[in-house]
Amino acid sequence: MRIEIICTGDEVLTGKIVNTNFSYMSQKLEDVGLSVHWGTTVGDDRESLLQAFQLASQRADAVIVNGGLGPTVDDLSQEVAAQAAGVDLVLNEEWLAKMEDFFSKRSRIMPPNNRKQAMLPATAEVIDNPIGTACGFAMDIGRARFFFTPGVPRELHRMLEQQVIPRLLARSGAPTTIFLKRFHSYGLGESHVDALLSGVEELAPDGSVKLGFRAHYPQLETKLVVRGTDMDEVRRKLQPVQTEVRKRLGNFIMAEDDQTLEGVVLAASTEQQATLALVETFTSGHIAARIGHLPGAEHVFRRGIVVRDRAELHDVLGLPRVALAGELDQETTEAVARAARTRAGATHALVVLIDLDAGADRIDFGGTIWIAIATGEKVAFRRSRILGGRDWVRLGAVELGLDCFRRFLQDLPVVERIDFEKT
Amino acid sequence: MRIEIICTGDEVLTGKIVNTNFSYMSQKLEDVGLSVHWGTTVGDDRESLLQAFQLASQRADAVIVNGGLGPTVDDLSQEVAAQAAGVDLVLNEEWLAKMEDFFSKRSRIMPPNNRKQAMLPATAEVIDNPIGTACGFAMDIGRARFFFTPGVPRELHRMLEQQVIPRLLARSGAPTTIFLKRFHSYGLGESHVDALLSGVEELAPDGSVKLGFRAHYPQLETKLVVRGTDMDEVRRKLQPVQTEVRKRLGNFIMAEDDQTLEGVVLAASTEQQATLALVETFTSGHIAARIGHLPGAEHVFRRGIVVRDRAELHDVLGLPRVALAGELDQETTEAVARAARTRAGATHALVVLIDLDAGADRIDFGGTIWIAIATGEKVAFRRSRILGGRDWVRLGAVELGLDCFRRFLQDLPVVERIDFEKT
Repeated sequence: MRIEIICTGDEVLTGKIVNTNFSYMSQKLEDVGLSVHWGTTVGDDRESLLQAFQLASQRADAVIVNGGLGPTVDDLSQEVAAQAAGVDLVLNEEWLAKMEDFFSKRSRIMPPNNRKQAMLPATAEVIDNPIGTACGFAMDIGRARFFFTPGVPRELHRMLEQQVIPRLLARSGAPTTIFLKRFHSYGLGESHVDALLSGVEELAPDGSVKLGFRAHYPQLETKLVVRGTDMDEVRRKLQPVQTEVRKRLGNFIMAEDDQTLEGVVLAASTEQQATLALVETFTSGHIAARIGHLPGAEHVFRRGIVVRDRAELHDVLGLPRVALAGELDQETTEAVARAARTRAGATHALVVLIDLDAGADRIDFGGTIWIAIATGEKVAFRRSRILGGRDWVRLGAVELGLDCFRRFLQDLPVVERIDFEKT
Repeated sequence: MRIEIICTGDEVLTGKIVNTNFSYMSQKLEDVGLSVHWGTTVGDDRESLLQAFQLASQRADAVIVNGGLGPTVDDLSQEVAAQAAGVDLVLNEEWLAKMEDFFSKRSRIMPPNNRKQAMLPATAEVIDNPIGTACGFAMDIGRARFFFTPGVPRELHRMLEQQVIPRLLARSGAPTTIFLKRFHSYGLGESHVDALLSGVEELAPDGSVKLGFRAHYPQLETKLVVRGTDMDEVRRKLQPVQTEVRKRLGNFIMAEDDQTLEGVVLAASTEQQATLALVETFTSGHIAARIGHLPGAEHVFRRGIVVRDRAELHDVLGLPRVALAGELDQETTEAVARAARTRAGATHALVVLIDLDAGADRIDFGGTIWIAIATGEKVAFRRSRILGGRDWVRLGAVELGLDCFRRFLQDLPVVERIDFEKT
């Protein structure tokens, strides 16, 4: 079944609001194995609306239209729907009564312009909106079934889930199930992972698993979209592919599905009853900011120290001035971690110190990143060098620091070559 | 000029990511007086892409296509563009060399599949992407000029602003000069500011100044779009309006145009040779993260302390346990600021402490925010209560803390009622 979505409204078209209704609808449809083939965004403009309805009515089996059901003059959906289908607008007495009731229950008189919301195309099937005055409706235009939904998100959500999706599923015939499996990695570029995973799709029969990526530096999301008749079949098809992906990406997979790196770190810390002391320099709070505010972090996050001049650590951690003043080295980095842990009375310390290149920001501006993780028993160390400008270095250092800590907590090697570093 | 936007990619079509690129582009075009007439979203699918390009090429004068320029098999924009225009794909040697250089500067070998990014339609005009390997390009398809841009937001932003918009303006005919004046405020809601600024547009003749807003909690951007024949006329028309806006919004204007709150704070600190000690709790590094990494912050940002349990401040700052353990009050907050300043040997201390409500996150979850700013001579204090869920409280506290510090540095009252607080 080919489904299209048409989002209407000047606010969405001009970018005044971000169109979260579209991604919400699209995601909900994917969740039940339906997929959207085409999305259209048009303003509160008669001609564009008519054209959008006509185009979709020729291409699609089902169309969800969002917005334009309100009481004001720029709400045009019912009017243009009637025009596109070549039918009249007719007052729906039942909806009018419902609206009058809606207002009187709130001790208000219904303003006259709300009457417009009960004017529906003659062939429309009413779709109930129990929490608002915008009347949803369905009707045929051309070869497609159109579903008209309100722009107010909470009204849309309820109508889509309770009314529109069941109608779509009933019409869809083949009830195929679709499932999305996601792996989040850090340290390997998209093309590298693409090459590493060459051929994994063939481990599932008949092209039922499709590999895709979403890069958002410094993280990469590897996605497997699986189709089957039901979740059992989906799981069977996915199994060999996901096992192979885990094997090939190995330690680089830091989280799966809805997990985040910081969530994984927090969960592992909580499980191990770890408490954390953190020291950072140029990342200037960005590492603390990833984890410290999460629910449950109050039991893990003991103390974070941010300094821009390493010499400050003399005073904060009681370290010798002379070591801090010179070039950084492994010994000093580890000493900072040990001192930070002891001072905070934490089980673990994570230290991410950065020597920035001199001069102004530029594309090959770099930083040398010195990472140490200390417990009472041992210290792990990682040195890296990242180029690509101030922001790139900072984002990379935050991720590398957190990922080293994840690896440490999971007993994986902290040092493993990544694509983004120059060694 | 009729402009359309085509967003490509399965992630966007399936709702896995919210399409912020669309609203970004649309808004940037609105800002310079151009408007988008139609938006289309399609997946990484040859047939849909071709159909979308063809439809837009018949309707529009200019089309911006976003996404599909990457190195992987699902990136199809160049290929389908060539097909739609009926031209061949040709290797662009210059872009290939540029990519090889891009990789070698990062001490990496270019993977073979990146070569695909240098295959462009024969009639394409290259549009530079100084920060990525995706090559932007422009070409005619049908009656429209198409502009192909990368899906990675920071690459898109730079390319749109520096390359695409100037080309669009040059094509748009009407040689009017358009200028966008922006005011950034914190603490007043959009409808409040709209009411405060009622009538300001009329201070300029013939509707040449248009007032608009963009709310992105906790900040509000107030925009004046001015049209004139040249910059002299634009400045003349803008003058009385911007003077009135500054007068009516007063101390709430924290930055203008490309300035940011943190940039204003850093500039004022630098000018006053101030150095900063920072203490934060639930904001957990988010305040430090706004300012500490900025160029020049190394001379201002002395030390940041992040704790989740206030009792830690006993050890870190040598404050009495008993004061920290009880309910917070003005005296304790000010004592923390004085101690933080003295300990760090800084000229100023900013302290933002938060008492969170108990229980799980919910829409009326709130926090009480205790702010103190200390110098050697004086201490300023501000207490606020913000409701709206954990994230809302955290975001509000970061902004309120930084804005209080801005007010302090600018000799403005630190306490002035804001719309977001419950007192």
